[in-house]
Amino acid sequence: LIQPEYFKFASSTAAGLVIVGKRLDDCSRLQLIHKNPYWAFAKTSQIFAPSIKQSGSISQKAHISESARIGANTTIYPNVVVDDHARVGDHCVLYPGTYIGRHASIGNSTVLRANVVIEHDCKIGERVLIHAGTVIGSDGFGFAPGEHDIAKIPQVGNVVVGDDVEIGAGSTIDRAAMGETRIGQGCKLDSSVHVAHNVHIGDHSMVCGGAHIAGSAKLGRWNILAGASNVTNHVTTAERVTIGAMAGVTKSLKESGEYMGFPAVPMREWRRQIASVRRLESLFERVRKLEQLKELKDKE
Amino acid sequence: LIQPEYFKFASSTAAGLVIVGKRLDDCSRLQLIHKNPYWAFAKTSQIFAPSIKQSGSISQKAHISESARIGANTTIYPNVVVDDHARVGDHCVLYPGTYIGRHASIGNSTVLRANVVIEHDCKIGERVLIHAGTVIGSDGFGFAPGEHDIAKIPQVGNVVVGDDVEIGAGSTIDRAAMGETRIGQGCKLDSSVHVAHNVHIGDHSMVCGGAHIAGSAKLGRWNILAGASNVTNHVTTAERVTIGAMAGVTKSLKESGEYMGFPAVPMREWRRQIASVRRLESLFERVRKLEQLKELKDKE
Amino acid sequence: LIQPEYFKFASSTAAGLVIVGKRLDDCSRLQLIHKNPYWAFAKTSQIFAPSIKQSGSISQKAHISESARIGANTTIYPNVVVDDHARVGDHCVLYPGTYIGRHASIGNSTVLRANVVIEHDCKIGERVLIHAGTVIGSDGFGFAPGEHDIAKIPQVGNVVVGDDVEIGAGSTIDRAAMGETRIGQGCKLDSSVHVAHNVHIGDHSMVCGGAHIAGSAKLGRWNILAGASNVTNHVTTAERVTIGAMAGVTKSLKESGEYMGFPAVPMREWRRQIASVRRLESLFERVRKLEQLKELKDKE
Repeated sequence: LIQPEYFKFASSTAAGLVIVGKRLDDCSRLQLIHKNPYWAFAKTSQIFAPSIKQSGSISQKAHISESARIGANTTIYPNVVVDDHARVGDHCVLYPGTYIGRHASIGNSTVLRANVVIEHDCKIGERVLIHAGTVIGSDGFGFAPGEHDIAKIPQVGNVVVGDDVEIGAGSTIDRAAMGETRIGQGCKLDSSVHVAHNVHIGDHSMVCGGAHIAGSAKLGRWNILAGASNVTNHVTTAERVTIGAMAGVTKSLKESGEYMGFPAVPMREWRRQIASVRRLESLFERVRKLEQLKELKDKE
Repeated sequence: LIQPEYFKFASSTAAGLVIVGKRLDDCSRLQLIHKNPYWAFAKTSQIFAPSIKQSGSISQKAHISESARIGANTTIYPNVVVDDHARVGDHCVLYPGTYIGRHASIGNSTVLRANVVIEHDCKIGERVLIHAGTVIGSDGFGFAPGEHDIAKIPQVGNVVVGDDVEIGAGSTIDRAAMGETRIGQGCKLDSSVHVAHNVHIGDHSMVCGGAHIAGSAKLGRWNILAGASNVTNHVTTAERVTIGAMAGVTKSLKESGEYMGFPAVPMREWRRQIASVRRLESLFERVRKLEQLKELKDKE
Repeated sequence: LIQPEYFKFASSTAAGLVIVGKRLDDCSRLQLIHKNPYWAFAKTSQIFAPSIKQSGSISQKAHISESARIGANTTIYPNVVVDDHARVGDHCVLYPGTYIGRHASIGNSTVLRANVVIEHDCKIGERVLIHAGTVIGSDGFGFAPGEHDIAKIPQVGNVVVGDDVEIGAGSTIDRAAMGETRIGQGCKLDSSVHVAHNVHIGDHSMVCGGAHIAGSAKLGRWNILAGASNVTNHVTTAERVTIGAMAGVTKSLKESGEYMGFPAVPMREWRRQIASVRRLESLFERVRKLEQLKELKDKE
C-alpha cells in the first residue's frame, strides 16, 4: 500500500496481509509495517515466488574442458561449453548455449540463462543472475585511426561483476583495454544495456533498458540511469545521481541529484529550459510588437 | 509504381507487370491496379520469394525433453533444447541454438531463427517469425531500492505474442511482473528493440530499430514507433499514433497523429519549436538593439 | 605520449620505450617517433598482445553439413553449425554456438566468437572479427501497411562485410531487401549497434555503441558515429563526417565536418543553439522589462 489512492480499500480488502508504511487504524487485516513498504513487498514476494527445481547435475551433452573446475551441486544444461581453466562455483545453474571462456570464474549460486557468453578471464561474483543472450567481456572499442587504416588497441583487461548483481537480456559489457570494467556489488542492469570498456559502476546502482555508458566513465554508488540514457566517455558522477530518460551526460556531475536533457543539466534547470522553448514562439511575437512600436515612434 | 517520378518509365518499361494505384493510359504492359500499390507489391513479391525447403524432422543432435510435445512436420535443427512440458506446434522451424523454456508454447507454422530464447511459460502465436538472438520472456526490471540493498520483485508473469507477428534480431521482450507483456496480433518489431515488462502493444503496430518501450506502457492499435524512439513507463497511446525518430513520449497521447521531439509534442508544434530555436540567436540580437535604443532614449 | 601533461614524466620514466609525436630532448629513453603516436602505440601493442593458441581442428561435437566446405587449419568449437553449401576459409576460428547459414561464406583468418549468427547468402571478408551474440543478415524491416494487415516485403538481398572489419557484441546488421547491405573495408563497429537493410557504410568508418543506422542510408568513407547516434533512412553523408553522441542525422550531409544535436547541425551551430537555450530565461526577463518600459511611456 504505497499509493494513497489505495488506502481506501484497506478497510474492505480480503487480503490476508497488507504492507504499509504506517499503521492504518481503519484496517482489520494483518499489517506488515515498514518505512519502505515497496521494498518490504519485494522481500515478501520473494518468499512466495516459485523456484524451479534444478537437477544439480551436469548434462552429458555439455562440453566441459578437462582443466575446468565445476563446484558441487551445480546444474549444467546441454550445449553448455566451459573452456580451459574456467572455474564455476557451487549451486550454479548454466542454461543451454552458455559459453564460459578460458580462465573465467563464476561465483557460487550464480545463474546464467540461455546463450549467455562470459569471455576469457572475466570474474562473475556470487548470487549473480544474468539473463539470456547477454555478453560479458567482449573487446572494448579501442582503435587508433591512422592514415590508411584504423589500428586496434588490444583489449587485454577483463570484466569484474560484483556479488548480488542482476543483468538483463541482450546486454553487452565490454572488457577493459587494460585493468577492469567493473560492475559494483548489488547493481541491477536492465535488458539491452551497453557498458563500454573500463567503465566502473558504483555499488547498488540501477541502469535501465537501452542505456549506454561510454568508455572509462566512472559512476558513483546508488546511481540510477533511466531508460535510453547515455553517459559520455571519461565522465564521473557523484553518489546518488539520477539521470532521466533519454538524457545524455557530457560532463562530470559532482553533486547528487536528478539530471535531465542533452547535454544533461539539473532537473529544475531542464524544466525551465523546456518551458521557455515551448513559449518561444510567443516571445518572437512580443519582440515583433516592440519593434513595430519603435518604428511607429521613429516615424513620429 | 508509387513515386510519380517513375511514371515516365511506364510507357517504355520491359517489365511484364506494373503495379499502380490508378490505371495508366500511357502503358501497354499488364497493369495490377490497387489503391495501395506498395502493399500490393509486397503481396506479389511474397509469391516469388524463395522459400527454403525444410526437412520436417527432428535432428538427433537436438535435446527434446520427454515431457515436451512437438507437432507434425516440424523441423528442429541440431543444438535446439526444448525444456520440460513445452509445446511446439505443427510446421514450425527451430534453428540451431534456440531454447524453449519450461511450459512455453509455440503456435503452428512459427519460425524461430538461430539462438532465439523463449523463456518458461511464454506463449508465441501462429505464423510468427522471430529473428536470430532475440530473447522473449527475460525477467522484467522490477526492483525496490532499500537502505542497504535493492530488493528484486519476482517477475512471475509471462509474454504473449499474437499471431502473424514478426520480431527482428537481437531484441528483448521482458516478461510481466504479474500478468502479461503482450505483443498484439500482426505487430512487426524491428531488430535491437526493447520491450519492458507489462507493456501491451496494440494489434498491427510497427516498432522500428532501437526503440525502447518502458514498463507498463500501453500502446494502441496501428501505432508506429520510428527508429530509436522511446516510450516512458505507464504511458498510454491512442490508435494510429506515430512517434518520430529519436522522439520520447513522456505523457499519455489521447489523440491520433504524429508526435516528435523530447518530450514528444505534436509534429507541427515540434517543427515550430525547432524553427524558433534555430532563429534564437537572431532574437537575442534584436532584443539587444531594442535595449540600446532604450538607453539612447534614456540619455536624451 | 600524446597528452602534453605526460611530457614531464619523459625524463624520469623507467619505461624501455616512449612513443612520441616529436623527438623529446629531455628524455634518455629509446624514443619511437611517429607523427600519429596513438596509432603507433596501437600497432606496437599488437606485437605484445597475448594470442590464444587454437587447435586448428574441427570438434566432433560441431555439426558441419556435408555440402559445406571448411578451409585448412580452421578451428571449430563444439556446438557450431555450418549449414548446406556454406564456405569457411583457412585459419578461421568459430567459437561455440555460432551458426553459418546456407550458402554463406567466411573469408580466411576470420574469427567469429560465441553465438554469432551469419544468415544465409551473407559474405564475410578476410581477417574479420565478430564478437559474441552478433547477428549478420537478419531480415530487414520491410513492410507495407494495408487496411487489415501489414504485408511483409521479402528480404532477398544479403549482407557483405569487407576485409579487416571488426564488429562488437550484441549488434545486428540486417540483410538488404534487394541487393546488399554493405560494411566497407576496415570499418570498426562497436557493441549494441544496429545497421538496417540496404545501408552502405564507407570504408574505414567507425560506429560507436548504441548507434542506429536506418534503412538505405549511405555513409561516406572515414565517417565516425559517436555513441547512441542515429542516422535516418535514405540519408547520405560525405567523407570524413563525424556525428556526435546522441545526435540524429535527418538530412543528407554534403560537407565533411562535425555534426551534433537533433536534427543534427554543424557543431558550431549546435553550440550556439545550446548556449542560446541556456540563456533563454534571461531573454524572457529582458523582453518583460522592455514591455514594462513601453507601458510606462504609454502612460506618460
